[in-house]
Amino acid sequence: MKVEVLAIGTELLLGQIVDTNSSWIGQQLAAAGLDSHFQTKVGDNPERIRGALRLALDRSDAVICCGGLGPTQDDITREMIAEVMGAELVQDDEVATRIRAMFEDRGRTMPENNLKQALIPVGASPIPQQPGTAPGLICPIAAVDTAKTADTRSERVIYAVPGVPYEMKEMITGTVIDDLRKRSGESSVIRSRVLRTWGMSESALSELLADRITELDAIGNPTLAFLASGVEGLKVRITAKAPSEVEAEQLLDTEQAVLWPLIGHLVFGLDDDNMETVVVRELINRGLTVAVAESVTGGYVAGRICAVPGASKVFCGGVVAYQPEIKQRLLGVPEGPVVTEEAAVAMAEGVRSIMNADIGLATTGVAGPDEAEGKPVGTVCFAVASPDGALATTIKLPGDRERIRQFSTISLLDVLRRVLVNQES
Amino acid sequence: MKVEVLAIGTELLLGQIVDTNSSWIGQQLAAAGLDSHFQTKVGDNPERIRGALRLALDRSDAVICCGGLGPTQDDITREMIAEVMGAELVQDDEVATRIRAMFEDRGRTMPENNLKQALIPVGASPIPQQPGTAPGLICPIAAVDTAKTADTRSERVIYAVPGVPYEMKEMITGTVIDDLRKRSGESSVIRSRVLRTWGMSESALSELLADRITELDAIGNPTLAFLASGVEGLKVRITAKAPSEVEAEQLLDTEQAVLWPLIGHLVFGLDDDNMETVVVRELINRGLTVAVAESVTGGYVAGRICAVPGASKVFCGGVVAYQPEIKQRLLGVPEGPVVTEEAAVAMAEGVRSIMNADIGLATTGVAGPDEAEGKPVGTVCFAVASPDGALATTIKLPGDRERIRQFSTISLLDVLRRVLVNQES
Repeated sequence: MKVEVLAIGTELLLGQIVDTNSSWIGQQLAAAGLDSHFQTKVGDNPERIRGALRLALDRSDAVICCGGLGPTQDDITREMIAEVMGAELVQDDEVATRIRAMFEDRGRTMPENNLKQALIPVGASPIPQQPGTAPGLICPIAAVDTAKTADTRSERVIYAVPGVPYEMKEMITGTVIDDLRKRSGESSVIRSRVLRTWGMSESALSELLADRITELDAIGNPTLAFLASGVEGLKVRITAKAPSEVEAEQLLDTEQAVLWPLIGHLVFGLDDDNMETVVVRELINRGLTVAVAESVTGGYVAGRICAVPGASKVFCGGVVAYQPEIKQRLLGVPEGPVVTEEAAVAMAEGVRSIMNADIGLATTGVAGPDEAEGKPVGTVCFAVASPDGALATTIKLPGDRERIRQFSTISLLDVLRRVLVNQES
Repeated sequence: MKVEVLAIGTELLLGQIVDTNSSWIGQQLAAAGLDSHFQTKVGDNPERIRGALRLALDRSDAVICCGGLGPTQDDITREMIAEVMGAELVQDDEVATRIRAMFEDRGRTMPENNLKQALIPVGASPIPQQPGTAPGLICPIAAVDTAKTADTRSERVIYAVPGVPYEMKEMITGTVIDDLRKRSGESSVIRSRVLRTWGMSESALSELLADRITELDAIGNPTLAFLASGVEGLKVRITAKAPSEVEAEQLLDTEQAVLWPLIGHLVFGLDDDNMETVVVRELINRGLTVAVAESVTGGYVAGRICAVPGASKVFCGGVVAYQPEIKQRLLGVPEGPVVTEEAAVAMAEGVRSIMNADIGLATTGVAGPDEAEGKPVGTVCFAVASPDGALATTIKLPGDRERIRQFSTISLLDVLRRVLVNQES
């Protein structure tokens, strides 16, 4: 089953918006074992949208159209799909009622042009999920409707989903993927689990998993995939196919258990976890509070911790001690060089003390563009101070100023995480 | 002149990498007055790349291929272009020497497979800019080489540029755009200037500029475009066409002067400026230092200021006072509610004092998910304290926790900027 994605909107071609929707849909299709050979962006132009739809139906079995379902004149996706289907647009009263109710819920009167969104090609059906005013559509296309006369495929399908990411995502995961898999004759369910790893390169991680990947290639199910996520580490995605959800989850559990001795020491979280949610959760579980003293990261560590809802339960506060004089006066760092493990420990202990926290964290280093204290750009010292004492470490990071600061931030959070889960590397 | 972008790489279809290159190229084409009707992503598959190239040449005058120029077996862009051109691939000795020299510069021996990158279709020429090992290519296509026999266009062209963003950008701005404009018969030059605005919605900004846009629509040159940039505000891009660079710059200067009375009060910077680079520059120019006390933004304000190289000249440091007790003990905030302008002023004055800074900044507010002190989510108070006294303001922001924190961060930086340039709104 070949599936294409067609992103619709002139603003995408002009680069005013980056099309992240297609990439996300590509991930979901790959995880569901559905082939995708092309993704196309096209502007709000009737002729070109029609052409792109016909071309996509010619070379693929299904097309997911993203965008152009709004109430304005520019939004012509449903009209173009109706033309390609050779079908009339008629108002779906249920959808119309739903849209009207949404406006009433917000205490507003529905503008009449929003009723345009309730128009649906005859033969199409609305997607049950509808988080916004734009309904998604499932539009079956009979083989005779296409130019390709020698085509023997029984039925193809166009899905229309809104361009608003959260609306689109709800429809893709709630309906489109399952519908595609049913059409492809797959009665099995597909489930994925992501192991979030940090601290190892893609090639080194592949090497650790090489034998298992060879075994899985022979078995065919589950499968493993790597997704690089920049300074946020590498995701290892396990995808399992099974007759039922329960069996798919069992396959995932079993595979996770097989992978654990190989890479478990690198895994900081699962699925939607990120480093800060994991750290905050571990702190809450242990009833511990934390404070941070930052130089090279300049507030990023505090900023990430505070991004987690509920961080106030565990985060006392932080000091951005950018000037040496502030490090000395506020945090009690001794005079002398400040890009040292000794200075990092003094900062961590200092902030722990003035913030009355259980744990103190610190970063100090050289983000560039120039070296400092004879230390090259990318030199960063970390420290964690707790009632059990302090530990410090120094790393040398590659990249530019921003990358060094981001990388230092997640590195320090990972050091704290390892201390908490008692896995010092 | 119609130009298509073809992004090549299976990792793009799988969503392992978001294709930001095409969006960026779309921006450059639009600014240069070149039409772009389609952007396509295709995997590393010979048949499909060939098909996509032929289709693009059929419906457009030029194709920019991005990616697939590396030294590995997956990288087949140059082979596919050679096939579509009907040309042999031959080694370009100059390019080969250049690649070898790059490896020698890094003290490494060139692996033999990198020589593949020096292969160039007969009739094509390398793009002069070559920041990495992959050379870019300009590949003219004679009309007879295409399937479309009724085609009367004289010559079309395929450009090949690497997928590495900084390499791609250097070639597009250094060669491709100018070459496209020459081919389109344009001897004029195109120059753009971006006015970075903050603090007004797109519809309100359009209203301010409505009359001028109508005038410019009649004149045709220069043109104005809006680019939304999320919490970073709206960019207004002026694009001017003229016989020479000097004249184009004069047109830009003149138009900027016309726009200034309308929107100058919203403009915080030009072109590559962002809010923090502007703030740091204004502080340096005035020889002033700054410190920040953060609650709701939790380190983001400090983090953004420190992102600017040279921030250490003006930034003393910051306190992330997340708990009320820390606000009181470290910053001297009186007991009582902390989401108030009084608390914000006390925080700004407190941090100014303990950091020995000329100016103190502060944020305190409710990021959610729950309301606090009876104040709804999105309530944020800002303060700026200086030797001349303190000012405070309260705003109510929409959106989720992260958006409220990001929006608060740039809001506070803009308040500081306005104080510095004496433009209090």
